[in-house]
Amino acid sequence: MSDLLPSWRDTATKSAIVDFVASVTTGDGTLPPDERVAVFDNDGTLWTEKPMPTQLHFIVMRWAAAAAADPSLADRQPYKAAVTNDLAWLGKAIEKHYDGDDSDLHTMIGAILATTAGESVEEYQAAVTGFYRDAKHLTLGRSYAGAVYKPMIELLRFLEANGFTCYIVSGGDRDFMRPMSHDYYGIPPERVVGSAVGLSFDETANEVRYGNAFSFMDDGPEKPVRIWSRVGRRPALAVGNSNGDMQMLGYASGLGMLVHHDDDTGRGDEPYDAGAERALAAASGNDWTIVSVRDDWSQIFPQPQAADA
Amino acid sequence: MSDLLPSWRDTATKSAIVDFVASVTTGDGTLPPDERVAVFDNDGTLWTEKPMPTQLHFIVMRWAAAAAADPSLADRQPYKAAVTNDLAWLGKAIEKHYDGDDSDLHTMIGAILATTAGESVEEYQAAVTGFYRDAKHLTLGRSYAGAVYKPMIELLRFLEANGFTCYIVSGGDRDFMRPMSHDYYGIPPERVVGSAVGLSFDETANEVRYGNAFSFMDDGPEKPVRIWSRVGRRPALAVGNSNGDMQMLGYASGLGMLVHHDDDTGRGDEPYDAGAERALAAASGNDWTIVSVRDDWSQIFPQPQAADA
Repeated sequence: MSDLLPSWRDTATKSAIVDFVASVTTGDGTLPPDERVAVFDNDGTLWTEKPMPTQLHFIVMRWAAAAAADPSLADRQPYKAAVTNDLAWLGKAIEKHYDGDDSDLHTMIGAILATTAGESVEEYQAAVTGFYRDAKHLTLGRSYAGAVYKPMIELLRFLEANGFTCYIVSGGDRDFMRPMSHDYYGIPPERVVGSAVGLSFDETANEVRYGNAFSFMDDGPEKPVRIWSRVGRRPALAVGNSNGDMQMLGYASGLGMLVHHDDDTGRGDEPYDAGAERALAAASGNDWTIVSVRDDWSQIFPQPQAADA
Repeated sequence: MSDLLPSWRDTATKSAIVDFVASVTTGDGTLPPDERVAVFDNDGTLWTEKPMPTQLHFIVMRWAAAAAADPSLADRQPYKAAVTNDLAWLGKAIEKHYDGDDSDLHTMIGAILATTAGESVEEYQAAVTGFYRDAKHLTLGRSYAGAVYKPMIELLRFLEANGFTCYIVSGGDRDFMRPMSHDYYGIPPERVVGSAVGLSFDETANEVRYGNAFSFMDDGPEKPVRIWSRVGRRPALAVGNSNGDMQMLGYASGLGMLVHHDDDTGRGDEPYDAGAERALAAASGNDWTIVSVRDDWSQIFPQPQAADA
């Protein structure tokens, strides 16, 4: 079965995965298939989140389009940053948040909500589908389908071959992930758990539409809450890469894994610990298995496709 | 394939079901299996909701147990009604609500939330599992497993045999349905959509716990919202039995069905239109198929099991 993991080097990490799966399928700790639930963070776990999360790329394009349609927006942030390609402004808004100043972050959040307020979920789905069809990853220069981590795709299939059901549980927007989750990961929309804008039903048009406020942010302690709400079980296996995944890893009854972005060999995955410091520090005390991008993965991304040439 | 529906009489209703399924699987309107999503209301659709919804039976037992543990509660409503078996008080609280007086309903809702506030989802799951093991339906005198509608169980299996995925979408409490949904209906917990109390994660105990307020009531216009949130698709087929199912039936892209409780032949299903008047009146204008309990079902409930003797 471990030949389903060709991009994983023969390290202790791969052994930990294979041994855990063997223990719940045939060993002493056998779990019935119904209880073989695996949950995966998305950004930084299933695909790269550098140089910026894919969703932010899409949002910046939507802000630029909004400013093109309504030039009065072009002098206001964050539309100005989008139009002038001043991505540093966005980074600074996040930095100011960590320094206790949420003013720019609130401006950003308001503009994020404004992009979908009143839009039907199916209109949004069509717009997101078009983005995945046309957009290129900013540094890899290929479609986002090629920005997924090949070893993680193999892990999804390996788990499924052993009776697991895999879910995405991400801080990203649920409905931004759904249009690609089946094609990129083999995970259908009903198994995509993420943050959500509040919805309401427009009876006249017979459409579900986004409101103007978030319903919840699926991060940190909210992840176990959303897993229960959507799945109704405690997961057996959880994989993440950041501080916001700690509670989800702790909630799993079996194996917890943390992807560590430590590859400095120029294979296209940017090395960083920012946002993962607490999780990495807590890993050994919690028996979480660290996945070293540098040491455990022989290949990071899929081969480029003809369409990427 | 229609031999999978032995409790359905050979009527126009059965033909409408069989023809619809044929049309999306082999006919002109073929839907890929991913899009063959069917949603079912629960109370009054998949099982009887008379003489009271199963969940209310459970709640009354919990109120009585709470009053036994804390006798100071026994003089207060709704605990008093539970202890004295004054179920009429509960009915009157609902009637007063329709007359514009919500005082008793608010008392009831507060007491419903009090039964789970601070409880972990797994503690509640164990309590509900015990109820299903021990409780008897109040008029059928058998376990609640025997209070399901046999023709609807056959319909679930018929749809699955044709590539459909079936979900419960009920106004009832999601976590009250999950412990029986697989055994009674063959529907796993991740495909149970219902009303929900707000949850939070208790990091110290590593448990998800109920709060003291509802997160949402999954009824009427909220049903399409919850279907999108959980499934991420518009259903092809929807089945309900009350006014609260109208929006869900309208949201379905294909067949909408409404169970009409019109059986006056003494086979154990109480005839009633209350709560379904608007839905029944709207059926023909919306091309919803009416399922007549009297005329379309040759058998209503499963044969009693030895355990029911």
